[in-house]
Amino acid sequence: MTDFESVGKAFVGHYYKTFDAPGGRAQLGSLYQDTSMLTWEGQQMQGAQAIVQKLSSLPFQSCTHHVSTMDCQPSGQTGGIIVSVTGQLLVEGEQHPLKFSQVFQLMPSTPGNYFVLNDIFRLNYA
Amino acid sequence: MTDFESVGKAFVGHYYKTFDAPGGRAQLGSLYQDTSMLTWEGQQMQGAQAIVQKLSSLPFQSCTHHVSTMDCQPSGQTGGIIVSVTGQLLVEGEQHPLKFSQVFQLMPSTPGNYFVLNDIFRLNYA
Repeated sequence: MTDFESVGKAFVGHYYKTFDAPGGRAQLGSLYQDTSMLTWEGQQMQGAQAIVQKLSSLPFQSCTHHVSTMDCQPSGQTGGIIVSVTGQLLVEGEQHPLKFSQVFQLMPSTPGNYFVLNDIFRLNYA
Repeated sequence: MTDFESVGKAFVGHYYKTFDAPGGRAQLGSLYQDTSMLTWEGQQMQGAQAIVQKLSSLPFQSCTHHVSTMDCQPSGQTGGIIVSVTGQLLVEGEQHPLKFSQVFQLMPSTPGNYFVLNDIFRLNYA
């Protein structure tokens, strides 16, 4: 496994584990910076604060992500990585999981660490 | 609509129209360069020639893409655009369309033109 794939895999594991933990969404802010962009079901936000506020205010208390596929490519920026995820999202109280697609671009921050510059999330109802 | 969204929308329309036309996949090479990467259902390729060879040798003669959602964000590289698409792919001879997710990073080439630096395609069976 090449380095960008190791980074992507570690990120994805950490991201969804944190997201799905009780109170975890409020802790995702450390993964974003002021330049970070989130497009959530077509709604655009920028900056760690706005992004965490959105994620924390989603209309469910708890959920579970199951990752089906994960693909990584270097993005052409020094150290940047594009991570594409497909999977299923099971929301508390619902019987059937929803398919989702999510794309991240990870960028190096401090040595050995990354932040999320781009984040695009879509439920795939169609 | 901001400029990157206009570019992304025009690209997506052109890409799938070309892909779905008879003999069209062989013409997609002009959208890729030597640095371009394609991950197709987990299989990694690099360079316009390898990518077009892969797309041209997919095990169906014709298909139709229906785009359900398209989201764009600036990628942080000068003029770079991340485009995330979800939709349905109907392959000739099949009764039921398959859901797909595809991510592109578009980069400026000649003025007013773009090429595909990153391309990740996944069928979303799960």
